[in-house]
Order: sequence, then structure tokens, then C-alpha cells
Amino acid sequence: MRILLINPNTTSSVTDLVASHVRRVAGDAAEFVPVTGRFGARYIASRAASAIAAHAALDVLAEHAEGCDAVYLACFGDPGLGALREISPLPVVGMAEASCLAATARGGRFAIVTGGALWGPMLEEFVAGLGLSDRLAAIRTIAPTGDRIARDPDAALADLAAACTTCAEKDGADVVILGGAALAGLAERIQPQVPVPVLCSVEVGTRAVLAAAICGLPPGQPAPSLASIGLSPALTERLAQE
Amino acid sequence: MRILLINPNTTSSVTDLVASHVRRVAGDAAEFVPVTGRFGARYIASRAASAIAAHAALDVLAEHAEGCDAVYLACFGDPGLGALREISPLPVVGMAEASCLAATARGGRFAIVTGGALWGPMLEEFVAGLGLSDRLAAIRTIAPTGDRIARDPDAALADLAAACTTCAEKDGADVVILGGAALAGLAERIQPQVPVPVLCSVEVGTRAVLAAAICGLPPGQPAPSLASIGLSPALTERLAQE
Amino acid sequence: MRILLINPNTTSSVTDLVASHVRRVAGDAAEFVPVTGRFGARYIASRAASAIAAHAALDVLAEHAEGCDAVYLACFGDPGLGALREISPLPVVGMAEASCLAATARGGRFAIVTGGALWGPMLEEFVAGLGLSDRLAAIRTIAPTGDRIARDPDAALADLAAACTTCAEKDGADVVILGGAALAGLAERIQPQVPVPVLCSVEVGTRAVLAAAICGLPPGQPAPSLASIGLSPALTERLAQE
Amino acid sequence: MRILLINPNTTSSVTDLVASHVRRVAGDAAEFVPVTGRFGARYIASRAASAIAAHAALDVLAEHAEGCDAVYLACFGDPGLGALREISPLPVVGMAEASCLAATARGGRFAIVTGGALWGPMLEEFVAGLGLSDRLAAIRTIAPTGDRIARDPDAALADLAAACTTCAEKDGADVVILGGAALAGLAERIQPQVPVPVLCSVEVGTRAVLAAAICGLPPGQPAPSLASIGLSPALTERLAQE
Amino acid sequence: MRILLINPNTTSSVTDLVASHVRRVAGDAAEFVPVTGRFGARYIASRAASAIAAHAALDVLAEHAEGCDAVYLACFGDPGLGALREISPLPVVGMAEASCLAATARGGRFAIVTGGALWGPMLEEFVAGLGLSDRLAAIRTIAPTGDRIARDPDAALADLAAACTTCAEKDGADVVILGGAALAGLAERIQPQVPVPVLCSVEVGTRAVLAAAICGLPPGQPAPSLASIGLSPALTERLAQE
Amino acid sequence: MRILLINPNTTSSVTDLVASHVRRVAGDAAEFVPVTGRFGARYIASRAASAIAAHAALDVLAEHAEGCDAVYLACFGDPGLGALREISPLPVVGMAEASCLAATARGGRFAIVTGGALWGPMLEEFVAGLGLSDRLAAIRTIAPTGDRIARDPDAALADLAAACTTCAEKDGADVVILGGAALAGLAERIQPQVPVPVLCSVEVGTRAVLAAAICGLPPGQPAPSLASIGLSPALTERLAQE
Repeated sequence: MRILLINPNTTSSVTDLVASHVRRVAGDAAEFVPVTGRFGARYIASRAASAIAAHAALDVLAEHAEGCDAVYLACFGDPGLGALREISPLPVVGMAEASCLAATARGGRFAIVTGGALWGPMLEEFVAGLGLSDRLAAIRTIAPTGDRIARDPDAALADLAAACTTCAEKDGADVVILGGAALAGLAERIQPQVPVPVLCSVEVGTRAVLAAAICGLPPGQPAPSLASIGLSPALTERLAQE
Repeated sequence: MRILLINPNTTSSVTDLVASHVRRVAGDAAEFVPVTGRFGARYIASRAASAIAAHAALDVLAEHAEGCDAVYLACFGDPGLGALREISPLPVVGMAEASCLAATARGGRFAIVTGGALWGPMLEEFVAGLGLSDRLAAIRTIAPTGDRIARDPDAALADLAAACTTCAEKDGADVVILGGAALAGLAERIQPQVPVPVLCSVEVGTRAVLAAAICGLPPGQPAPSLASIGLSPALTERLAQE
Repeated sequence: MRILLINPNTTSSVTDLVASHVRRVAGDAAEFVPVTGRFGARYIASRAASAIAAHAALDVLAEHAEGCDAVYLACFGDPGLGALREISPLPVVGMAEASCLAATARGGRFAIVTGGALWGPMLEEFVAGLGLSDRLAAIRTIAPTGDRIARDPDAALADLAAACTTCAEKDGADVVILGGAALAGLAERIQPQVPVPVLCSVEVGTRAVLAAAICGLPPGQPAPSLASIGLSPALTERLAQE
Repeated sequence: MRILLINPNTTSSVTDLVASHVRRVAGDAAEFVPVTGRFGARYIASRAASAIAAHAALDVLAEHAEGCDAVYLACFGDPGLGALREISPLPVVGMAEASCLAATARGGRFAIVTGGALWGPMLEEFVAGLGLSDRLAAIRTIAPTGDRIARDPDAALADLAAACTTCAEKDGADVVILGGAALAGLAERIQPQVPVPVLCSVEVGTRAVLAAAICGLPPGQPAPSLASIGLSPALTERLAQE
Repeated sequence: MRILLINPNTTSSVTDLVASHVRRVAGDAAEFVPVTGRFGARYIASRAASAIAAHAALDVLAEHAEGCDAVYLACFGDPGLGALREISPLPVVGMAEASCLAATARGGRFAIVTGGALWGPMLEEFVAGLGLSDRLAAIRTIAPTGDRIARDPDAALADLAAACTTCAEKDGADVVILGGAALAGLAERIQPQVPVPVLCSVEVGTRAVLAAAICGLPPGQPAPSLASIGLSPALTERLAQE
Repeated sequence: MRILLINPNTTSSVTDLVASHVRRVAGDAAEFVPVTGRFGARYIASRAASAIAAHAALDVLAEHAEGCDAVYLACFGDPGLGALREISPLPVVGMAEASCLAATARGGRFAIVTGGALWGPMLEEFVAGLGLSDRLAAIRTIAPTGDRIARDPDAALADLAAACTTCAEKDGADVVILGGAALAGLAERIQPQVPVPVLCSVEVGTRAVLAAAICGLPPGQPAPSLASIGLSPALTERLAQE
């Protein structure tokens, strides 16, 4: 079983970090094919960067999906998730969507903690788009963006744990999602300081994409064939398919 | 891997029907242990029957969960799901919750079609409880309850297909869940008549419980120890645990 | 006029406490027939206990409703309320529902304060099920459950008053419901410390059931006749009625 | 027990019609003091008419509340309800609010049928203001306004019954409120044609105001003293009170 | 271009204050015709005062709209806005509605800060009526009402700035509306102390009414002709028009 | 005054069509600078095409905004609107957002009619993202996409008018937005067949961008400087700015 692992930003060290954590979780249940975006922001920390990343993710999928059984979009915020599903013959799992659905299945209310202040309103809209706003207790961000946290995780642990604890104690969250590709593996490190379960978004997403690759689901409705210009040959071809 | 399959009504032929379909979907990925409720309605078709079934499901879990890796509550409507999770050391998957979350992960809006008019408002509240009302296009019921459909499926196929098609064409559903333990296997039979994908709730739930058994998730917060009277010894003991 | 007063937990001293407060409020407007649940948790402080209590309440109603004019379900959280209404020829009033509706009729937003941390998410879902989430300012719980508060009310008064005041000052509540059968009579004791009105759920429910017994309402639609096994004779018979 | 019955439009024959129906429902439980608005539209069938009626209702209350135990605002749409509560030392019951809360307490979803097309969006906002939109199945209006229906009820019965039936069969309503002071008494006449219970708003409101007069509720927070010009002496004085 | 500027309270010094600020914003783009309400509270600080102000605003419009190109209802809370639109042949802009829509068009979530505690729940309902509750981060009021703030703005600046900052830092607002006719011009004075943009409601409303006067929009549907008594001749005539 | 008019698809004849209609509406109030997307789908009729268009719109803005006073994103669905606002020093108006806000300001509920079935769920999410779902009566699409309608408008008029009428009569819309850059000018042609006002999205957006250019609004909070690769020089530079 092969799973395409899309990092839609353009920093290959983040791709490596995520891939390594994903493989640790999945064991030998599947082979992961990590690919970094060809263009766009080094790290996705704004709406503009996220919009470009959606295009970059489509570009990666069109080029690399062949021979895979499922697609794992490994950026918390899932840029382009709906669009990827539209053009993909394979099941596509987004890290943020999988985390929110898994949290919902636990009952009660969930919170999200991540790095980078702009992600606050962006994720609020993401959760609203899922239709899950009523289940969301809070979103709390700490100042450094994920890439900075990845470069020096120890410096961020106390702030992340404090934010998670505030979500539980002040916002009434029954579970907290520690969101972010670059935060892979930090949930278990802060769990001892937090009074409710902390979910690692990379880990939850990995399990969800394994389940999707194993189980599949009936395909959605095909999108119309669209002519285009100025895109990569693979993406041009994919958009033109019925 | 062993999975406890709880049929919370008291009709063992429905248990057999579900178990057989579940085993067909799961192949040899897991062994299923089907158990029928000890008390309550023959078939769950009202709020009163559903309330009693929640107790019956707790009773089954307390008696039979030992040695299992996950629990599959196989009644569309998931009576007692939150309560089961509270007292269960194992992941518990409900057929209706799993179906609604899987439908949500496809994007767009979903509908539910099932048998028995009283299930309409009951499922509406169930979806609201999940926080997914905004994603729900419609719930449509046909008159015969699931147990009657199970006894003569051919007589119901046309009505089920018509209800699903109405969900798609009139209510704008992008996918329809054919809900009901007793409707196991009918989705694929009506799919050719319906213009959008039809999900079999038994099948989606089976895949979800397999994924839960494989992947697990960090445990929730323990419920308090509670003294009780008049319950089965196993349930009395389980409630008394911290 | 006779009103069946159901205490769905299994502690008769709580039944006595509620009955005594109810009689003080109602004066000689009606005769109350208090009945304690036959099985289930000593005090309802979890989803599991509440699920079993729904069955126990149905069991009480089937056995004791005859000769009464209305039913008062005296547990804040109203376990089994919808199911009771389904099988009851009499109007059924739930303490929590009556309190939330009365608070809604005052305009502005209401809060709920009660004992026992697990009640927080349970009541949040209850209010959502009523469709009143938009009117809910907050739910705040103090640690001891209602039965402990009943055993030593003086020890809890300061915490209850503080929680109510926080609802008003921080959460913007215009009125606070002090919820819980076992908290009967405490609202008036903490009112002087709280800047907004504090409603006693036992008292509001008493008034609502008196009004229901006096005024009645056209009956709902009958539930289907359902066969069952393993239930008390009275409940078996009630479920079998059309 | 005396209850002030405010008809906020300016047609005394509507006041008489409502008063007669109210007395039939209440029997000798209370004395009703019917008062017609001093100024404003003959019948309230637009937002402008409703806005003026709110002022007229305040004017009536300031002049006539003395010596009464409760206030019944007898116009479905409850113009000025929140404002009346602010300046009233007595409990104030609105016909539409009471009907919506009573319908909510029955579980399931409710619909409203009334006369006059402009009431459709006005009542939709009213229900939204109550926070009960999620419980509302539909609002359906027939063309003639309530005053015309009152002048020739027989001509409207078939249309009212058809609208109620559509609410049940197409919109999924479990109960229908037949709203409108001028429609007093028509619910029972159309009930045989409608497959779900039809509530008469005048009747539900009467029972609610009786219950309020009997039971009372702790008072709300006092509004500030406000100076004013150009109002009736009684209203000027009432606004100036703390 | 002439714009009718309605101050629906009865204090002409507030009218003067608003008119002067409006003219400063609009320059010579339009001529403003300020009119003060003929009756009602000196300052609108309660539901009762607001209900009467709706009537007073209708009264002003009926008398003074002729020869104008647009109407500006200059009270934050927009008493009677829908009713004014119903009887007005001209576009009508409300200060609060225009501010909320402008804030919505900026993305993220907005908060409102104003004077007078009773405005809190009143504005919450106003925003709910607009359908924008999900975009509202918070409403915070300071104790003095707008007219007192207008008499001594310097005394209120620190409290207003603190409330705005709390909206940003604690409630997550991306922009704050400083609402209130009598607060004209204070936004720019507190902006330096607040970490997010502060919108002056008078200014946003002025720009919106200029745009409405320039651009127009297709007219709404006409309200029915209504007979009335006891109103000013101009309003009587206006209500009677089809 | 110069306004950048971004057509984010790649068909210059659509750009010409929109520009011509925009100029007709704006007269000589402003000079419009129309620019077509450099890459992406010929016409935007799917999520994938829309995701790429967001990038293309950012690319156009970075290259062409200099010397302009406002930006008009002329694709109904507003791909990349939030991202454009983030990187733009100028006010950015989206055609769909402006139309929905203008419709909201009219009171009641609005509907949207456009071409291309996939736009249905995409616009539903767009309106939900605005927070205006409660004000939305319906979205109805006709089969041909906007570019086909533009090539032969006469063939589509009857279907568009029928869809608008259904929105009014069946879905209860008080106003209908005819959405789509390529549908410029058709609203006035179908208005006579539709019983409620029909708004032309191109026209409403034009008026909104004129108002924004005239009035401006305080700037939002700046996005962080982001390094990137593989983008156009202008966009790379813009993302790198603080």
C-alpha cells in the first residue's frame, strides 16, 4: 500500500520531519511517498500562503498520485482539500479535517492549539466550513509559527502546554488537538502537563489515511472537464479529464 | 483482533443479519462477537424503545467487553453511545455517528434514509447532538420499520430508492446514508437507481470500528465511581469503577 | 389534582428532599405522589447513570401514572423526557426543560449552575437538543455532585454563589438557573450574593407542572405498539399499547 | 385575579373577539380587562404597523396595569414584548412567545400558520429572536390578513387547514401553531383536517398568562429611569421610574 | 443630493453633534437635513425607549422625507429600521446595520463597544436579527450611556479604550465598532490605545448612506395599505399608501 | 480614481464582457483597469479551478495594483478574497460578498441563482463563511456554466427566470442575486418575469467598489513577511513585505 504524503509548503525539512513521524506511527502498514510543494511560501502562515498552497497541492497530486492508494495532505488547515478530492481518483485525507472529526467522535467539545497568530481566524473558518463550530470550544495560538517551533521545540513546549491547559480549564474543552505538521510528536511531550487528552494532528491524520486506504469509500461525483492555460502538464491534463 | 458487536434490540435474527454483513465487509481482518440485548423492545422504533436500549447496551458491554479490542454499537441511532464510551476501556463506534462523520468527510451535504416514521425527529436530534445539522440536507423515512424491511427487502427497495433520489434531487444531498442495522446490504442494490452515492451504514460502521481497533486513540477522562442498585452484577461493578 | 413526582435516581432521601420542597411551593394546589427509581445509580452524575435513569423513569411511569393528572420528572437533566412523553397519556414536565423555557421567556441569556463536573457537557447537549444554545450564556459546575451538596449545603453555598456571579459578570447571563433536584431551596439562600435573578429549578418545574395539570394541551401523536422482553409487566404493557 | 388583556391594534371588535375566546378558555379562573390600543393601524399587518403597536401597547400598560396581576399581550407577533417587560412590575405573556415555548416543550419541530403575507418574514425573525429557529419547521401564511379572516372565517377554513397540512406533510412539523388574535377558536375547527395537533395561539397564551399570574417568577432587573417628552402622562411617569 | 438624518431620540444637542460629525465626514458630497424625534425618551437606553423611538422615526420620515434622496437613521441600534424601509420610497441606512456589514466585509470577527448596560442584550439580538451572530466576537458596554459620554467624553475615553482592547485581546475580535450616535468622533481618539482597528459607527454609516444615495438599489416589495387612527397626518397618509 | 478589475479566470472575452458592463454602471465615476488571470481554468466551474484562480488573482494583484485606489475581484464566488485583502494595501471588493451584504441590508432572506451545478455547494460554503447562512433562502443553479450562458444568453433566460421565481415562490426569498461575471446585464432582462427584485451581482459589486474607493476604511492588520519560491517576482516581493 502506497500513500502520497503532500507537504504543500516548500520546505523539505518539514516534509522530512512529518514523514519520519508518520512512518513511526504507521509502522510497516504502508509505504509513504513524501513530496514537497514546487512553489509557494516556505511555511504557510497566512491566507495568501494558504491559497497558493492549495494550487501547489493540486500540482503535486496531479504529478505524483499515480500508483498510490490514498493521499495524505499534511498541513494543518488542509489547503485545497475539497479541490484535491474533486480531481483525485483516490481518497484524500486532510490532517485538520481528520483531527476535527476524530475529536468529534469522542463527544464533548474540542479545542485546537497551534503556532502562528493568523491561523486563529483561518482555522475558525475551517471548522465552520466543516459544520462543527458548535463543537469547538476554542482555538488558541502561540506566537511562533510551526516552522520556528520545529527548529527549537523545547523553547515552545511550555507555551503550548499552557495554551492547551487554558483550553481545558477556561474554555471547557474535553480534548485538545495540537495542530500542525511541524508540531509532529510534541503532543505526547506536553500531555503530562495538560488535564485533558492532547491529540497529535499528524498522528490522527496518519491513522485516518491508513483507514481510508484500507477501507475506501464509494467515489464522489466527477467534476466537469475544464480547459486551462499556464499550469503544469499533469495538472492541465487532470483538469481536462471528465 | 476481537470486536464486540452489540445489537441493542432483542431480536437475534437482526443480530445474525448484521453479523453476517459485517463479516462479509471485514473479511478476516477481525473476529466479531455478536451479542443481542437482554431486555427491551424487539425492534427499536420509538424514543422509549431507544432509551431502554441504551441501558441494554450498557448491560451487554459490561458483561461481554472483556477480551475485545473495540466495540461496535450496531443500531442506527446509536442508543447510549456516550454512556458506553464513559464506562468502556475500549473504543466504541456507533453506526450512525460513523456514517455521519464519513459523510461529512466527503464534503457537501448528506441525507439519511431509513425505515420507521418516528426515527425522523429522533435522528434529527442525533445529528444536532453531533453538531452536524448544518451539513444535513434531509432525513426521509419510509413507513415500514427496519425489522419489517429485513423480513421482505424486495418490497421496500423501490420506496428506499425513491426516498434517496428525492434527497438528492429535491433536498440537494450530495450523498445519502441508508441507515439501519436491518437494512444491511441494501445500499448496493438501490445504488443504480440513485444519482448520488448511497452509503450503507452497517458497512461504514464496520470500516470505522476496524480502523478504531487498529489505530486506537488516547482514552477519554474517566467517569466517577457510582454506587447503584438493581442492575446486573457486571454493570454494577463497571459503574463502581473509577 | 394528583401529580406523579418521579425521582429517577435510587436515593429515597433525595426524593424526600424534593417532595418536601415541591409541597412547600405548591401548597394545597395539588397532591404529589413521589416515587424513587427501582434500579440505577444512587445519584445521577454521568452519562451512564443518566441512560439507566431514563429506563428507570419509564418503569416508574408505567407503574404509577394511573390516577394522576400530570408527571413531574424531578432530575435536572430530564433523563428520558421525550420517551416518557411518548408513552404517557398525561402531560410530562421535566425540571431542566421547564427551567430553560422559563428563563427564555424572560428575554436575554440564561446560565446554568449545578454540581458535578460531568453535567457540564451533558447539559450543554441538553440545551442544544432544546434548540436554545443561542440563548445559553454559560454552564458552570462546582465539583461536588448534588447528593453531596444536599448532605452539607452550607459547605457549598459560597461556591454556588461565586459560580452564579461569574455567569452574570463574565459570561453575560441575565438570569441563572440553579439546577438540581438536590439543590432544592438553595437559590433563595444565594440570591443576595448574586447580581442577577437566580431561579430554583425545583420551584420553576413545580410551577410548570401545576400549570400543565391545570391547562393541559392537545395530546401528541401516539407511538407505535412495540413488543418487548425482560421489562417490568407494567412497562411491557405500556410499550405494547398503540 | 385580574389580567390586563392588551389588544395593540385599534379595532375594538378584534378586542371583543379575543376577550370572548379568552374568557371561554379561562372560565372563572381570572377576570380579564380588555383594552384596545389608542393609536396605530386598525390591524397589524406590516413592520410599520407593528412598530407603532409596540408604542401603543406600552401606552396601554402604563395606563391600565394598576390593580392587575399579569398582562396578556394579545397580538401574535408580540409587538413590544421585551419593552413591556422592562417597564412592567407584573409578568407579561405574549401570545406568540407562549405558543412557541409550548410547542417547543412538546419536542419535535413546530410550524406556524397565520394570515397576511408580510407576517412570514416578521415571524421568522421573531422565532430567531427567541433562539428557536432550529425548532421551526416552517411558517406558512395565507393571503387574507387576520381581520379579514375574522369577518368571514368560513371562507378561510379550507386554506388554513391546507396550509397546516402542508406544514405537517411537506415541512415535517410535529405540531402547528395557528397564530393570530383574530383566529381565536379556529384551531379546533380545522383540527379534523390536519394530521398533527393544531394549537390555538389565543388559547395557549391564555393558559400561559393564567400560570404566570398564579405562579409568578422573580422580577427582572429594573430599567433605568428615563426622561421623555410628548408621551402620555402615564407612560412618561412609568419611564421615569427606576 | 439631500439626505434626511433622523435622530430618533428627543435631544437636539445629540442631533447637532451627529450632524456636525456627519458633515465633516461627507464634506460637500451631500446636504444633510437633521431632524430630532417629536416624542419619546431624551436618550435611548432601554427597550421601551427604543420601541417608542421606532414610532418616532416613522413619524419623522413621513413628515420630512420629501425632497430627499436617502435616509440615515442615526441611532446605534437602528430602532424601526425594517419598518422605515417598508414605508420609505428612499433607501434607508441604519448606523448599526451599516457598521456590522462593513465589519463583516473585512473578514474575521467583529466586536461592538458602546455605553449603557442595557444595550448589551439589545444589540446581541440586533446582530442575531441580521444573521451575523457567528461573526460577532463580543459586545462590551461601559456604564455611562451615550448622552453622558457626549457631555464629558474625556472622562470615558480610558474605559472605552480598555473595553475595545479587551474585545481584541480576550474575545478575539479583529475589528471593533465603537457604536453610538453620541460617540461620534471618539474612535480616532482611542485608536492609538487599541491593537485592532476601531470603526466609528457614525462615520461608517455616513459613508454607507452616501453610497446608497449615489447607487440606489431596486426597490423592495410595497407594504399593504393600512388604515390607522391617532397618528400624525403624514404618517397616517403614508401607511394608507399602497 | 482607478480601480483594478481582476477576472481570475483566463478567458479575456469574459473580462471584456464584465468590463463593459462595469463601465456602463460606473459611468465616469472611475477608470477601470481590467486584467485577466495568467494561468488556470478558462472558466471557473469547480473547486479545483477556483483554488487555482485564488493564486492567479494574487498574481494579478501583485503585478497590477500599483497606481490603483481599489480592487474589484470580478468572479462570483470571490476566489482568494481573504488572501487578496491580506496582501493588498487597497480595499478589495468581491462580487459575491458585496452582493450578499447588499441583499442582507434589504432585510428578509435572499437567494442566489447562477450557472453550473458545482457552484451550488461551493456557494453554500461561501455564504456560511460570511456567517450569513441564516439569511439564505436557497441557492439554485441551472446546468450551463456562466461562459456558455455568456455565449448564448437568450437560450438561458427562461431557465434563469424560472429558477429565480422558484426561489421566491417556493424557497421564500425576498430578493434574488443573479450571480456570475458572465451573467452581467441579464438581471434586468429577467426582472419582468420574477415576482421579487433580482440583483445583478456585477452591478452591485461595481457600486460597492466605487463606494470603497470613495470612502475607504481603516486598514486591516498586516500579514507577516513570508519567504517563498517559484512564484512571480511581483508576488514573491509582495509576500515578503511586512
